[in-house]
Amino acid sequence: MPQLPDALDRFYSVIPAGGIGSRLWPLSRADAPKFLHDLTGSGQTLLRDTWDRLAPLNGDQRIMVVTGRAHRAAVEKQLPELRDPNVVLESEPRDSTAAIGLAAAILERRHPGVIIGSFPADHVITGESLFRSAVHEAVVAADAGYIVTIGIRPTEASIGFGYIKSDGPLDIPGAESALSVDSFVEKPDPEVAERYLAEGTYLWNAGMFIARADRLLEEIGASEPALLAGLLELAEAWDTPRRGAVVDKVWPALKKIAIDYSVAEPAAAAGKLVVIPGQFEWDDVGDFASIAKLHSGGRKANLAILGEGARVLADSSSGIVVSHTGRMIALIGVEDIVVIDTPDALLVTTSANAQKVKAVVDALKLSGSSDVL
Amino acid sequence: MPQLPDALDRFYSVIPAGGIGSRLWPLSRADAPKFLHDLTGSGQTLLRDTWDRLAPLNGDQRIMVVTGRAHRAAVEKQLPELRDPNVVLESEPRDSTAAIGLAAAILERRHPGVIIGSFPADHVITGESLFRSAVHEAVVAADAGYIVTIGIRPTEASIGFGYIKSDGPLDIPGAESALSVDSFVEKPDPEVAERYLAEGTYLWNAGMFIARADRLLEEIGASEPALLAGLLELAEAWDTPRRGAVVDKVWPALKKIAIDYSVAEPAAAAGKLVVIPGQFEWDDVGDFASIAKLHSGGRKANLAILGEGARVLADSSSGIVVSHTGRMIALIGVEDIVVIDTPDALLVTTSANAQKVKAVVDALKLSGSSDVL
Repeated sequence: MPQLPDALDRFYSVIPAGGIGSRLWPLSRADAPKFLHDLTGSGQTLLRDTWDRLAPLNGDQRIMVVTGRAHRAAVEKQLPELRDPNVVLESEPRDSTAAIGLAAAILERRHPGVIIGSFPADHVITGESLFRSAVHEAVVAADAGYIVTIGIRPTEASIGFGYIKSDGPLDIPGAESALSVDSFVEKPDPEVAERYLAEGTYLWNAGMFIARADRLLEEIGASEPALLAGLLELAEAWDTPRRGAVVDKVWPALKKIAIDYSVAEPAAAAGKLVVIPGQFEWDDVGDFASIAKLHSGGRKANLAILGEGARVLADSSSGIVVSHTGRMIALIGVEDIVVIDTPDALLVTTSANAQKVKAVVDALKLSGSSDVL
Repeated sequence: MPQLPDALDRFYSVIPAGGIGSRLWPLSRADAPKFLHDLTGSGQTLLRDTWDRLAPLNGDQRIMVVTGRAHRAAVEKQLPELRDPNVVLESEPRDSTAAIGLAAAILERRHPGVIIGSFPADHVITGESLFRSAVHEAVVAADAGYIVTIGIRPTEASIGFGYIKSDGPLDIPGAESALSVDSFVEKPDPEVAERYLAEGTYLWNAGMFIARADRLLEEIGASEPALLAGLLELAEAWDTPRRGAVVDKVWPALKKIAIDYSVAEPAAAAGKLVVIPGQFEWDDVGDFASIAKLHSGGRKANLAILGEGARVLADSSSGIVVSHTGRMIALIGVEDIVVIDTPDALLVTTSANAQKVKAVVDALKLSGSSDVL
């Protein structure tokens, strides 16, 4: 068994628990976002799964959660071990650079030299020890000054994920599998995805970032100096009585930008980003096709049924049914179907159209039907 | 304008309002059968449409309704003009020979020489004056002693209807379009249906029968003498204080047999059945595919939406949505889909599978889920 890296003592995990998961509407809602659902059948929420995956690395003391004020009670109910100073509440969503950057700035003030790892609250990972091995390597590489991400070896030509184009290996002792990153690329179309899969140098972008907090803030400052200034002002006031006033003044004015654009892409372009290829199974369960796949055991003809007390009668049908109403649901001769049955909204689509659900949510917003969002 | 046939003075309409319409589950239920629904968007129930179609022929005084005890209140609410002696209540369903035969036996006792026409409570007809013309001819042919049906010229190779194979014309003054009937044939498979359509001698069996009551009873007696004896015993007691006792004794023991088998097929074989080809549009709205067609204006790409206060958001989808819950229903990329949304049951299928809905109802019965039937 390899020795644990010393740097692990300075390692904090940050869980940004923010995204609603619009492509999972009407299951995922503004008041019941994706991370508060059990989408795997594990019997607990994705957020709780995430905590349980990180606790062996950090202990309960060194996991910070950044979430919206509206979700505080639900998050604390899911995570009774979460310590109060480790709860960072957003008065409104300002995207991932602000969320992760604020956590980095607060932790850097509290624990100078801290290494932070940001892990999405609503992804699914199988193979926990492989996950931990990858984090160990990432922490070592982060301690050496790199911005580090963990990429996933593609198992199929997915068009639902962004990709990381890797370059040659780097020589980082204790992070032997680290590769330099050539670039981040957006979700491809099917032909391009096939090429990525064939070339073998592309990894899925799993949205995990590990870095020394000071290095992360430095990268944010290089691309978004005003945003960094705001984050530092917030962090300075955070553990003082001035927090509320400064939050009210600064937070709403912060630029909304994903950390992929503010940090990952510029750092990759500057040769400062490395990727640890993760050997574990991963899915962002970003849409219903993904959930169906997760539950089908790989068999296309299967019908996955989620929801406590679901009553489903199906005749030659496949896909996924999520029942949150207890109603009898009968399916006849519908293949690859997606039926999401909730008390105030019903979605019927197919796996092939699962990515279009977000557009429906946008249309509902525009048409003044936000009561069901 | 042709003169009305004298026999029309002796003409009574009978509306058997019994069938649940299992292929329309979960819209049509034991406690809300098909004839109590507005499936055409006319703003009133099929039963009321049927009454309004017959009243110009019979007036309000000469329309009899045979229905289940459980539906009495709903039927009388729909038909305030219905006179009390013209309500025949079944204690339990005994199929169409018993229902129509009892009406015939009661009316023959009350009005010897009466001609009756039996018209289903839950079909859709467009072209009322063409309908009345066909009934006029049918009444004339019935007065001449024939058992008469009205057949519909097929407009497509339907596999959802039974067919009537017609023979040459008959020479019946006042019923010039009457054809003799060779035979009744069951719902065909698609190839056979194509052949029927091409041959031109086949008509759809619309389940309408017109005959002198004494002739109809004679035909029932020829094939089902015990059943006839029961009907006559019931009719004799009907307008007396003994009705209840005789009903309790006789009705539950009557043989369950469709009038197609007890009367139409034997009469056709014996050359005593004639058909008047109806020139009007007709549909039995027997399944959701049929309802979708009715509402699509013939355009396959259309999505028909039924239900008061329906909230439907559809993106490149076609078929039919029936909303009885007021929930938001979102459809994405589902073609020829059938979504029936009711408070306690949801059906998702396709037009092509619409005929299989009955099998689901049977499966629900077997599985002890009759709470949703």
